[in-house]
Amino acid sequence: MRKVAIIGVGMTPFGQLWDRSLISLAVEAGAKAIHDAGITHKDVGVLYGGTMSSGLFSGQEHLASMFADHSGFDHIPSVRVEAACASGGLALRQAYIDVASGAHDIAVVGGVEKMTDLGIYPVTKVLSTAADAERESSLGVTFPGIYAMMARLHMHKYHTTEEQLAMVAVKNHAHAIHNPHAQFRRAITVDQVMGSVKIADPLKLLDASPVSDGGAALVLADEKTARSQSDTPVWIAGSGHATDTIALHDREDMLSMRSTVYAARDAFRQAGLSPKDIGMAELHDCFTIAELLALEDLGFVDRGASGSFIEQGQAHIGGSLPINPSGGLKAKGHPVGASGIAQAIESVLQLRGDAGLRNTGAEIALTQNVGGSGGTAVVHIFRR
Amino acid sequence: MRKVAIIGVGMTPFGQLWDRSLISLAVEAGAKAIHDAGITHKDVGVLYGGTMSSGLFSGQEHLASMFADHSGFDHIPSVRVEAACASGGLALRQAYIDVASGAHDIAVVGGVEKMTDLGIYPVTKVLSTAADAERESSLGVTFPGIYAMMARLHMHKYHTTEEQLAMVAVKNHAHAIHNPHAQFRRAITVDQVMGSVKIADPLKLLDASPVSDGGAALVLADEKTARSQSDTPVWIAGSGHATDTIALHDREDMLSMRSTVYAARDAFRQAGLSPKDIGMAELHDCFTIAELLALEDLGFVDRGASGSFIEQGQAHIGGSLPINPSGGLKAKGHPVGASGIAQAIESVLQLRGDAGLRNTGAEIALTQNVGGSGGTAVVHIFRR
Repeated sequence: MRKVAIIGVGMTPFGQLWDRSLISLAVEAGAKAIHDAGITHKDVGVLYGGTMSSGLFSGQEHLASMFADHSGFDHIPSVRVEAACASGGLALRQAYIDVASGAHDIAVVGGVEKMTDLGIYPVTKVLSTAADAERESSLGVTFPGIYAMMARLHMHKYHTTEEQLAMVAVKNHAHAIHNPHAQFRRAITVDQVMGSVKIADPLKLLDASPVSDGGAALVLADEKTARSQSDTPVWIAGSGHATDTIALHDREDMLSMRSTVYAARDAFRQAGLSPKDIGMAELHDCFTIAELLALEDLGFVDRGASGSFIEQGQAHIGGSLPINPSGGLKAKGHPVGASGIAQAIESVLQLRGDAGLRNTGAEIALTQNVGGSGGTAVVHIFRR
Repeated sequence: MRKVAIIGVGMTPFGQLWDRSLISLAVEAGAKAIHDAGITHKDVGVLYGGTMSSGLFSGQEHLASMFADHSGFDHIPSVRVEAACASGGLALRQAYIDVASGAHDIAVVGGVEKMTDLGIYPVTKVLSTAADAERESSLGVTFPGIYAMMARLHMHKYHTTEEQLAMVAVKNHAHAIHNPHAQFRRAITVDQVMGSVKIADPLKLLDASPVSDGGAALVLADEKTARSQSDTPVWIAGSGHATDTIALHDREDMLSMRSTVYAARDAFRQAGLSPKDIGMAELHDCFTIAELLALEDLGFVDRGASGSFIEQGQAHIGGSLPINPSGGLKAKGHPVGASGIAQAIESVLQLRGDAGLRNTGAEIALTQNVGGSGGTAVVHIFRR
């Protein structure tokens, strides 16, 4: 397999973008990434796109064809992949395999979701299709409830506190202040999180990522093209993807997503690196508890130690391992199919030193993108 | 890229399977393919699955995770791809790229759709999400209408007759009689097609493929594994994938799907073959007119000559180029995400000489799988 680098990035603002259509978000992100890479449409050999549920959200399937058409590409192949909220990360991985294989030299890979302005179904109902329809969602449990069960068990087993959960949200809001694309660019306090409405005990509204619209895109290139085209290529050093039971109750340990564990194992092995080598990470904080679980599953902290790691400020920009300098899903926003791509964009900006006041100085970055309650996980490691 | 072969095939019956769930169809097809390949679950490195709209049809996204879980795989990566009715063919292509790249040695690739027993939306509404939602389906046009416009234009331009269209259906029903997995194993006559109810003038009910449930799966392996594991590997000699405008009205020529033209060009080039080398083909006959257009776009006949080609019996088993010996989408059935995989299964059975009374004796086979009205096309060429 050939080496592959990211040579261009582009994204729309994330937020409630009532005046924007699904396809316009995808087109904008892709055009920005192509511009950033300094290439033209004619250089692109293949498109990959991740979106969770454009059918239920927007009444539109067959998006890959639509991307190619509406972006003005000339009949090139275009692939949509779906893995619930890991759709973006998985699209990146599939585009990586494509370019690594030699099938194409340059790929544009995007993620997009339009979650406001819906048709028949409410957003929580659509998101619940990422769980087991027959054995979870049909019984009434939705994702706030699923993650609340994990949070309650973590509190019971490790004495993690609700305040420590709240500190994840506070940290990620503090980071997002410096991200011009973030949905929430304002600080919040632990008291505000603790005082926000309970949505699924012990989780409160401010423990949850928001409903968002947005698009994000990358340009990938093989080594030869990347070296000739870019002064600042960011290399995909490792790529891992794994599954776990789709239903939470089928797992031996509800506090570990084996998908994350195995995806990380493969990504670290490919990169020849270990958790201590990572300078910053973008983790899938759809709910605050998810960031804690990820810290443990990825081997950054011991089991049960994630709450105090956050409380000690080690995950802040300036701490020992900055987590979600972009603001994360929690504060940057979570247009589900776009989130995995936006994580990669933040990694690229950080490794280029182009993240402004969010710069961490990291030389190696990791992203972890989760589908559902961990039925899918995709882990990537990037380096300069 | 490494050479890749199909070493196992398996499918469920296609039909209105009221007692079967989406996931049970997928699991059955995959298990049969694994059994046919003579391998075990532990040998499989990655899963690929194609399904068009499990969200709208069945209220279930995140199917790749569910496939891996419910089939008993141990945390392996699993990828869902979607390209409307070309989802199966595209899943095959992506699995091919994966194995060719060296990422994994053995892949199981399946396609599945559950189109009966729906929730809120009628089936035609769901299928219309494969067209441009804002500029086609929102104006009331559905796929019977879209293909009817192509048929009317073909009749106007080339003097193709309604009877010639009907002969496509008659031929494919005649072929399906010998296919134990086909939805309709009974002969029909031109008079019956002509007398069936008009659904979108000039297309009648018997010009259309049916609404179907079903699953189909393949086992792919790299050259070394295939040679050690199989006495009858069927090689993927060429793989092409291209797009066209998603909306029919945006095309220069409504009678040519440029997606098929470009996908075929790439597949033939890779295989080092031309249309005259093909011994049989499975084409995407979602409506009878689609088989005619495919014959022309693939270079099997001159523009406008497809109607007489059918009328002369050249596309029958025993003719100069048997088309859809399986019965095609028209008579075998069309569970949309599964159709592209079922086309490949028929090709494998034919090349192995395992198609019983349908055997054509072909040594090289071609499949063409279309999404929407040609926004996507995937073409594969197989040889012994």
